[in-house]
This record gives sequence, structure tokens and C-alpha cells, in this order.
Amino acid sequence: MINENKARFANESFYEAFNKRDIAAMERVWGEDENTTCVHPGWPPIKGFEPILNSWAGIFENSGNMEIKISDVQVMASEDLAWVSCIEKLYTIAESGVLVSRVFATNLFHLEGDSWKMVMHHASPVPDIKGTEEVSKN
Amino acid sequence: MINENKARFANESFYEAFNKRDIAAMERVWGEDENTTCVHPGWPPIKGFEPILNSWAGIFENSGNMEIKISDVQVMASEDLAWVSCIEKLYTIAESGVLVSRVFATNLFHLEGDSWKMVMHHASPVPDIKGTEEVSKN
Repeated sequence: MINENKARFANESFYEAFNKRDIAAMERVWGEDENTTCVHPGWPPIKGFEPILNSWAGIFENSGNMEIKISDVQVMASEDLAWVSCIEKLYTIAESGVLVSRVFATNLFHLEGDSWKMVMHHASPVPDIKGTEEVSKN
Repeated sequence: MINENKARFANESFYEAFNKRDIAAMERVWGEDENTTCVHPGWPPIKGFEPILNSWAGIFENSGNMEIKISDVQVMASEDLAWVSCIEKLYTIAESGVLVSRVFATNLFHLEGDSWKMVMHHASPVPDIKGTEEVSKN
């Protein structure tokens, strides 16, 4: 259970780094294992710490109006490997109002030294009857 | 390393069950943990052993001409949780010839008793410049 809590905390740190567009925090989230992989929604898989961090830097430059809120968090943790899945609600501020789209994420964390580091982020769009839902108009 | 091999074997059993459309084998692959989740490419996540098996039964009924070959297999295993990622090359026999599309899969296995059981299959399409590539014409 302790490892589950640590994995949950590491998962929250990842989304906090995203929402703050904090590339230094994002660097602290990710692991340097050779298997480390990131799949942004609709992208081909990116392997390795540096290419992954570069992709986040690019996303941060182009995502000024995005925020992720997570729900349906589930955790399974072993000695040094932990799985967290969640639904990401991705809010985008557009001219017509706030748009929300849903993404399903499989996140894996590996114990490196005494830190739980992200070694996999696999995100893919959740289909919706309406596709992208408009939640409010300003 | 032993657990890595067991996870690799469990992963192969999953694709073998798919290629043989063997629902009994597919039942033996999957775990009954409450977190057990399956994301078919472009589908919403399905949770729980029975709904997941029902989805495979439906796919088997409608996929007579499909075969998956995997590549780029990478494995990370802990005491009782293991991660396998791979590229699925999905071959479909169409009137115009054999079509191949690529899917990226994150598969997780959990030790239940003395068996490594699949608790997550997260598959999403890999974008390609050509989208779907035609490999041969008959």
C-alpha cells in the first residue's frame, strides 16, 4: 500500500508538471531506464529520456491554454514497478468557449534509487459520442 | 530475468490466442484483478474480466482475416508485476491484397497464484505517413 501511495504521488507530480508547464519538474518525473517510453495521443512512441523531454518542451511551448484534470485513478504497485491508469480530461480554451476532450492514460513508474520515476506514459483519445464536448461558452 | 522471460511468454500466449481466435486460451491469458483493463485501438477502456472476454469473443467473430505479428518487444519485470510493450503489425486480407497497419501496445501482467495474468492491454494506432501500408497484391 505504501508503494501504491508513492506511485499515486508520482502520478500527481507528472500532471502538476504538465499543468504548470514546468520542464524542470517534468525532468524530475521521468526515469532514465533504457525502456523509458512516451506515447502522446496520436503520436508514434518516443523512446529515451532526452527525446521525451524534448517533446514535452515542444508541447509546453504550444499549449498555453490547456489543463488536465484526472479522474478514475487506479493503482497497482509491486516492489519496484507500479502501474497507474487514469482518465485525463483535457481542457482547452478556444474562442468558442472551453472544450474538453478525454484521454485514457497508462502510466508506469519504476523505482530508481529511492525515487519512483515515470518509465511509460501511454495516452490515447477516448472516443465519445460527441467526440469533443463543449462545456461552457464565455 | 526469470520473471522477464515469464512475462515475455505470457505476452506471446496472448498474441497466439488472438491469432488462433481461441477464446478458451484468451480466458487463460487474462487476470481477474479488479483493475483489469483492456483498451482496443480506438475503443473506450473496458474494465473487468467478463466484459473484456466478451469483447474478444466479438472481435474473434468478426476478424477471420486478421493476423498480428509483434516486434520491438521490451520487457520490465518486478516481483509480481511486469510490463511488456511491443509494436503489433496487424495484417488484414482485403480484396485488394494484404493490408498492414501498426498498433503500439502496452501490456501488463500480474502474478496471480503461480501464473502471470494479463491485467492491462492498451493498444493504440501508430500514425504512419501513409496511414495503412499495402504490402502485397494478389
